[in-house]
Amino acid sequence: MAVAKTLTDAKTKLLDASLQVIRCKGYAATSVDDLCRAAGVTKGAFFHHFKSKEDMAVASAAHFGAMAEGLFSHAGYRDLADPLDRLLGYVDFRKSILRGEVSHFTCLLGTLVQEAYETNPAIRAACDQYISAHAATVEADIVEVMRVRGMVPGWTASSLALYIQSVLQGSFILAKAKHGPAVAADCIDHLRRYLELLFINNKGGLRND
Amino acid sequence: MAVAKTLTDAKTKLLDASLQVIRCKGYAATSVDDLCRAAGVTKGAFFHHFKSKEDMAVASAAHFGAMAEGLFSHAGYRDLADPLDRLLGYVDFRKSILRGEVSHFTCLLGTLVQEAYETNPAIRAACDQYISAHAATVEADIVEVMRVRGMVPGWTASSLALYIQSVLQGSFILAKAKHGPAVAADCIDHLRRYLELLFINNKGGLRND
Repeated sequence: MAVAKTLTDAKTKLLDASLQVIRCKGYAATSVDDLCRAAGVTKGAFFHHFKSKEDMAVASAAHFGAMAEGLFSHAGYRDLADPLDRLLGYVDFRKSILRGEVSHFTCLLGTLVQEAYETNPAIRAACDQYISAHAATVEADIVEVMRVRGMVPGWTASSLALYIQSVLQGSFILAKAKHGPAVAADCIDHLRRYLELLFINNKGGLRND
Repeated sequence: MAVAKTLTDAKTKLLDASLQVIRCKGYAATSVDDLCRAAGVTKGAFFHHFKSKEDMAVASAAHFGAMAEGLFSHAGYRDLADPLDRLLGYVDFRKSILRGEVSHFTCLLGTLVQEAYETNPAIRAACDQYISAHAATVEADIVEVMRVRGMVPGWTASSLALYIQSVLQGSFILAKAKHGPAVAADCIDHLRRYLELLFINNKGGLRND
C-alpha cells in the first residue's frame, strides 16, 4: 500500500511538474531528466507510469484539461443567470488570470500542439480534444445567448467559441514575444468589444450577417 | 569567387530550408543535421555561416520577416486608395493564403517564440521585432482609417493591429490542432466582422468606446 501510494504520488508530481516545465521550455527541449528533476522523482518512477515522453505529454494534456475544467467550472461567473453575462464573465475571467510569469498563465495545449502537431499525432489529437472540450463549454453559453435573443446570424456558435480560443492562444504568443501580459490583456479587451458589438451594440445590420 | 558564391548559396539554402523544417518540426526538435540535410549542404558550410543553431534561428526569423514583407508589400490590396479597403484587403489576403500543408501557411515567428521565449532571449527579441514590424504596417492603415473617419475611440490603432496578429497566430494553433486551414478561415471571418462592426456598421454607441 505504501509503495502504491508513493507511485501514485510520483505520477501526480510528474504531471504537475510537466505543466510548468513544458510551458517554460517547450516540449521538445524538455527531457525526461528535466521532468524527473522538477518532480523530485526517479527515472524508474517515470517509466513505471509512462511508456515514453510522448505518452507523458498526452497524459499532461489531459491533466491540464482537467485542471482548467476545475478552474472554470468553479469560477464565480458560472453562477450568473444571464448567458451573456456568463459569456462576458468568461472573457473578464480570462483577463483576470493573466498574472505572474508568462509560463504560469499560458496554455500547455497551445504550446504542445504548436510544436508537435505534425510529428506526434497522439499529442495533436489530445490537444484538439481538450481545446475543443473547453470551447464547447463557451459555445453552450453562446447558443443560449442566441436563443434568448432570437438571433439567426450568418455565423455559428461553434465558430465564435473557437474564435475566442484563437484570440486567447494568439494573445499568449504576443505575451511571449513581448515578455509580459499587457498585450494579451489588450487583445482580450478587443475580444470583449467584438462580443459587445455582436450582442449588445449591433443596431445596424451586418454586411456578413 | 566560385567558392564565395557557393558559400552564399549555402546560406540562402539553409535559411530557406529552416523556414520549412522549423515550421514542420518545431525549433528544439530541429537539429543542425536536419537543416543541412534539407538544404543539401555540409555541416562545415552551416558553421561557416552560423555560430550555432540559435544564431541560425535569429537569421531565420529575419529571413521570414523579409519574405513576408515582400509578399505583403506586393499584394494587390496595397494599391487600393481607401485605407479601410486596404485593411479589409489585408484580412482577405491573409485568408486567401491559407492553402496547402499547415507548415506552409503558419508563421515561423509564432512557432519560434512559442517555444523559445524563455530559454533563448535573442530568438524572442527577433520574433518580437518582426511580428511588431509587420503589425506596424497594418497599424499605418488603421491610423489612416481613423483619421479619415475622424474617429477618437477608446482603443489605439497599435492595440488593434496587434489584436489582428493575435487572431492570426491563434488561428494557426487551431489549424494545427485540427490539422487543416478551415478553422483558421472561420476565425479570419470573425476578425473581418469585428473590423466591419468597428468601422462600417457601428450605428450604436460602444460601451467601451
